[in-house]
Amino acid sequence: MSVLFAKGFLAAGYASGIKESGGLDLSLVTVSGNEPAAAAATFTQNLSAAAPVRVSKDHMDRSSGRIRAVVLSSGNANAATGAKGLADAKMMCDLVAAGLGATPDQVLVCSTGLIGIPMPSEKLESGIPKLVRLLGNSPTHGLNAAQAIMTTDTKEKLVALQGSNFRVGGMAKGAAMLAPNMATMLAVLTTDAVIPDEFLRSALRAAVDDSFNRLVIDGCTSTNDTVICLSSGKGDHADPDEFKLLLAKACRSLAMQMAMDAEGATKCVTVKVVGAQSDSDADTAARKVAGSQLVQCSFYGEDAYWGRLASELGSSGAVFDIDRLQVSYGPIVVAKEGTTSEFDSAKLKGYMSGRELEVVCDLGLGNGSAEILTTDLTPGYIAENMRTS
Amino acid sequence: MSVLFAKGFLAAGYASGIKESGGLDLSLVTVSGNEPAAAAATFTQNLSAAAPVRVSKDHMDRSSGRIRAVVLSSGNANAATGAKGLADAKMMCDLVAAGLGATPDQVLVCSTGLIGIPMPSEKLESGIPKLVRLLGNSPTHGLNAAQAIMTTDTKEKLVALQGSNFRVGGMAKGAAMLAPNMATMLAVLTTDAVIPDEFLRSALRAAVDDSFNRLVIDGCTSTNDTVICLSSGKGDHADPDEFKLLLAKACRSLAMQMAMDAEGATKCVTVKVVGAQSDSDADTAARKVAGSQLVQCSFYGEDAYWGRLASELGSSGAVFDIDRLQVSYGPIVVAKEGTTSEFDSAKLKGYMSGRELEVVCDLGLGNGSAEILTTDLTPGYIAENMRTS
Repeated sequence: MSVLFAKGFLAAGYASGIKESGGLDLSLVTVSGNEPAAAAATFTQNLSAAAPVRVSKDHMDRSSGRIRAVVLSSGNANAATGAKGLADAKMMCDLVAAGLGATPDQVLVCSTGLIGIPMPSEKLESGIPKLVRLLGNSPTHGLNAAQAIMTTDTKEKLVALQGSNFRVGGMAKGAAMLAPNMATMLAVLTTDAVIPDEFLRSALRAAVDDSFNRLVIDGCTSTNDTVICLSSGKGDHADPDEFKLLLAKACRSLAMQMAMDAEGATKCVTVKVVGAQSDSDADTAARKVAGSQLVQCSFYGEDAYWGRLASELGSSGAVFDIDRLQVSYGPIVVAKEGTTSEFDSAKLKGYMSGRELEVVCDLGLGNGSAEILTTDLTPGYIAENMRTS
Repeated sequence: MSVLFAKGFLAAGYASGIKESGGLDLSLVTVSGNEPAAAAATFTQNLSAAAPVRVSKDHMDRSSGRIRAVVLSSGNANAATGAKGLADAKMMCDLVAAGLGATPDQVLVCSTGLIGIPMPSEKLESGIPKLVRLLGNSPTHGLNAAQAIMTTDTKEKLVALQGSNFRVGGMAKGAAMLAPNMATMLAVLTTDAVIPDEFLRSALRAAVDDSFNRLVIDGCTSTNDTVICLSSGKGDHADPDEFKLLLAKACRSLAMQMAMDAEGATKCVTVKVVGAQSDSDADTAARKVAGSQLVQCSFYGEDAYWGRLASELGSSGAVFDIDRLQVSYGPIVVAKEGTTSEFDSAKLKGYMSGRELEVVCDLGLGNGSAEILTTDLTPGYIAENMRTS
């Protein structure tokens, strides 16, 4: 279902040859009809922001967020590619606009893949017009669009949620390099809800903060991260609160799918910090624990080595008193008052062997709490990232 | 050699049974004679600081830095061990003091190993008196003391430097978990130089900042890090500038030995950032690059994937303009003005296969510069850290 679950959208995927494998590498999502629709977008904070990010920001400004289409490519990030990179990203928008009879600033563009390598412009020039002609609204069209943005993802990431009188759909890609302030991740969400433009933007910001921005895999913040929500306005007037909740739920679903499919990961771990002096302290502490290589190695080894959690908490910058610390893995308390407590080691072993884990660090200092999603660090991650080819 | 290279010290190592392997696990360095001598020390900033760190800080205060001995144990960090841990660390000092005829506050204590596990007190009680009786000043004594602080280190780390009329010696341990503000590392330096106490302290602070604190392996800051410098005063009056330089050189030598022996590492990499708007910006940027899992994976893969460096630089917080960036691996420039440049790929391949690499990121913005030492991230690191037993 994906981006076509909501009414009023078309999609396509095409293999243009950017990927040496010959896989799908160009993806397109458009609002059906000839009118632009309301869009909201959030972009990476990385100062090395890729050319497509720069172009999309500019187009959002110029079109006042009234958008016809999003074109996405995989296999080459078009990042660190200088003036040629900007020209290539603009050309992608120009070609889509020409095919749709739109203006270039009504088209957004995203790319994902290797950094620092020039885009194969000729493949875009021949591929994009074909991509536009492939647009359709069957389930296969939605699936192709989602597959065409995958890089090291092992499966497509899709969401389709039904509200009382509107729908939210979406697709995403993301693997490794998932960090605060978004990841090497792209997501396109669609809705047919009729809602005010300004509300669409604030709802997307809130949804991203509560989902993609709570995912920490390797602490790296990508050059290309983009989340876009397109509203076709082809459905009914939605209740704003319900819309906000459903959009956040869709983003959380996609974020969880990313964590479950992170490069080389064998476990998906929720790190909760409670009892902090403030929510902000809890957030700082949870991010430090979740992002720790040593902690992630212990998840891979199914080793409830809580001493490493204590060490990370103590160096996180949050207010901390080890003598008040309590640590649990799932339902099993392993440390109280800063030192190892009695526990059933067979039960703990069984718990640690699970695919999804939860770690709770209670700082015993107040009511602040936060949750961060992460994975284990594995030899598979290294194998995936040690060479670009 | 080692801590006994400088005049006026004794050392010993003993296998007390803390390590299940039966290896040396208690180490002692003392000033010869019955008088305390000037000492300087720096400790971890981690709020989960281990019991021995807390006790050593207290003893430095109480004795006004006039110290007779340092006792060190390996195999158990005595961290996250509550009130019993503090009692054990104090007992270690008490037993050494009794053996030497010193007061307990003239003894410093360090431990390294697993966190959150109670110390085997009875092994300390029987072992430390034996350790004191083993004190001597032969090369074997110095070597034993250095071997008795090793954990996952594959070799002992020693230094011996001759000044014009004084000597500096030292030993250290450290592997993985090496991060800013010190590492899971212990170092004991010795000197026979006659220098004012206050100068010893400032020289050690400067030396640590310029060596151990410029080492970033996995971004984790340990609970137990301690660097101690003991001065026997048995030599000549040293030139302060020469002493400062030699002490810094000794610390850099030990830090380099740590990087070369970091857990699972196959490469030792110096990350230089030059052309930054300030030294502080350069430092921020170099730490971000050096500590990046993705960058470290590319070193392991011998892959000069400079796009990842650009991505880290852009998200480091330093002032950055990708269009001014130049990147070199050793003598080979791979990127200019933020995009890939022409280079000899056979020459680059040869360079990347080396054991020691240097990466230079020129930000093209000013005169700020900084250097950080790191390693690659390898399957060996994960194997070493996935389980505690």
